Amino acid sequence: MPTWRIDLSYDGTGYRGYASQVGLRTVQGELESALETILGTGVVTSVAGRTDAGVHARHQVVSFQHPDVDPVPLARSLNGILGPEMSFMAISETQEDFSARFSATWRRYRYLIDRGPAPDPSRRHEAWFPGRVVDLRLMREVAADLVGEHDFSSFCRHVEGKSNVRRLTSAEWVENGDFLEFWVEANAFCHQMVRSLVGHTYDIGRGFTEPGSTAAVIAARDRSQVATVAPAHGLTLWEVGY
Amino acid sequence: MPTWRIDLSYDGTGYRGYASQVGLRTVQGELESALETILGTGVVTSVAGRTDAGVHARHQVVSFQHPDVDPVPLARSLNGILGPEMSFMAISETQEDFSARFSATWRRYRYLIDRGPAPDPSRRHEAWFPGRVVDLRLMREVAADLVGEHDFSSFCRHVEGKSNVRRLTSAEWVENGDFLEFWVEANAFCHQMVRSLVGHTYDIGRGFTEPGSTAAVIAARDRSQVATVAPAHGLTLWEVGY
Repeated sequence: MPTWRIDLSYDGTGYRGYASQVGLRTVQGELESALETILGTGVVTSVAGRTDAGVHARHQVVSFQHPDVDPVPLARSLNGILGPEMSFMAISETQEDFSARFSATWRRYRYLIDRGPAPDPSRRHEAWFPGRVVDLRLMREVAADLVGEHDFSSFCRHVEGKSNVRRLTSAEWVENGDFLEFWVEANAFCHQMVRSLVGHTYDIGRGFTEPGSTAAVIAARDRSQVATVAPAHGLTLWEVGY
Repeated sequence: MPTWRIDLSYDGTGYRGYASQVGLRTVQGELESALETILGTGVVTSVAGRTDAGVHARHQVVSFQHPDVDPVPLARSLNGILGPEMSFMAISETQEDFSARFSATWRRYRYLIDRGPAPDPSRRHEAWFPGRVVDLRLMREVAADLVGEHDFSSFCRHVEGKSNVRRLTSAEWVENGDFLEFWVEANAFCHQMVRSLVGHTYDIGRGFTEPGSTAAVIAARDRSQVATVAPAHGLTLWEVGY
C-alpha cells in the first residue's frame, strides 16, 4: 500500500496538543477527521513529534498509508478545511516502509524567551516572558553540559518500562534582539524534556539552582531535581530529519 | 502641567482600531479607561498613529498631561491591566509642549506579505497571504516611483477640507525567507494610505494593473484608480520619530 508523507506546521495555541483525546480539539483529531472527510475512509497516522498542549510546530511530519491519494488537491483541501491555524506545505508519496515517527533520525526544537522590558504582544503566544534578569553565560555552560548521550530521567515524565536515554547532539542559546533562543537537537526527546531542560537552565540563570550542578542533576535520574518546567507556549518543533 | 510620554506596542487583532468608539473595544478606549482607574482622573491623550482595526503597533507613542505621575509603577500597572495584548515599554516625562501626534516628524510602517506555499500559522495575524505569484522587480519599481512629496489622494480616504500631500522619504521591498516586507517612511500618512500603496503595488506585481502606471495614478488624485486595499492585519506601525 502506498505511503504518504505530510509536511505541515501549526499554531498550537488553540489545540489541546497533538495526540487525539476524546472530546478535545487536538491536531491529530482535526487532521484525521479532515482526512476521513476528504478520502472517504479513516486512516491511521504516524507523527514525528507528539507536541503537548500549547506547543507549536514550524515543521511537523505525519505519514499514513492509503491506496489512492492525489497529493496536490489533498493539500489544497486540507488547507481549506484546517487553515490558517494549520498549514500544509507538501504531501508526497514516499517509501512504503516510511514512518514519520520511527524513520526520523533527529528532531530540532526552539524555545523562545522574551527578555524585553515588557512582553512583546506579537509574540505572546510563542515566547515565554519570565520577567527576571538571567545570566546568559551560566545558561550557556548548562547547554554545553547537556550535550551527549545521557539518561535524561531527571528531565522527563516517567513512563514505566521506557528508557529515557537520548543522544543530544547540540544545544545552544542565541541572542536575537529582545529574545533568547534555545536551539536543541537530539535523536529523539522524551515527554516534557525540552521544557525541563529550559526550566533547569533558567533556574541556574536566575541564581536559584547552583551553577555547575548539571552533571549531578543528570546523574541523579530523579525528576524532583528539576524545579521548573518552562511553559509550553514558548516551545516550537522546528525541524525533523530522516 | 507636566507632559508624559508612553511608549507602547500592541497586537491589533482583538481591537477595533486605535481610536475610541462608543461600545467597541479599542486601544484608546482601553488605555484611557485604565489610566483613569490608576490615576483617579480622566486624561486626554494624543497619539502618533491612529491605527485601523486589525493593524498592529510595534512602537506607538501616546502623550498626556497630568500633575502627578509616578512613571515606573504606572507602567507596571498598565502592563498588569492591559498586557500582554498591549505592552508598555516606557513612560517618561517630556517637554511640556510635546504632543505624540503633532511633534512627530516621521512614521515608519511595515507591511508583511506571506508568499510561502501555504499561510504560516504563526504569522497569520500579522501577514497577508494573497496566494498569487508576484513580480518583485515590478513591485520595486513602484516603490521607487512612490518616493517624494506628492498629493496621495488616489491612495487615501477623502476627508473634506484636508490635504493629502505627504512627503514619502523611503519605500522598499525586502525579501525575508517566505516573506516580503514593505518598509515605508513618511512625514505622515493619510487614512488607509499604506494599505492602498501595497494594494496598488500588488496589483502591478500580479499583472492586473499596468506596470509603469504609478506616476499617472498619483497624478490622477482619484481614489478609483486603486482597485485593491491590502488587508489591515498585514500592517504594523513600526517606529515614530521626533
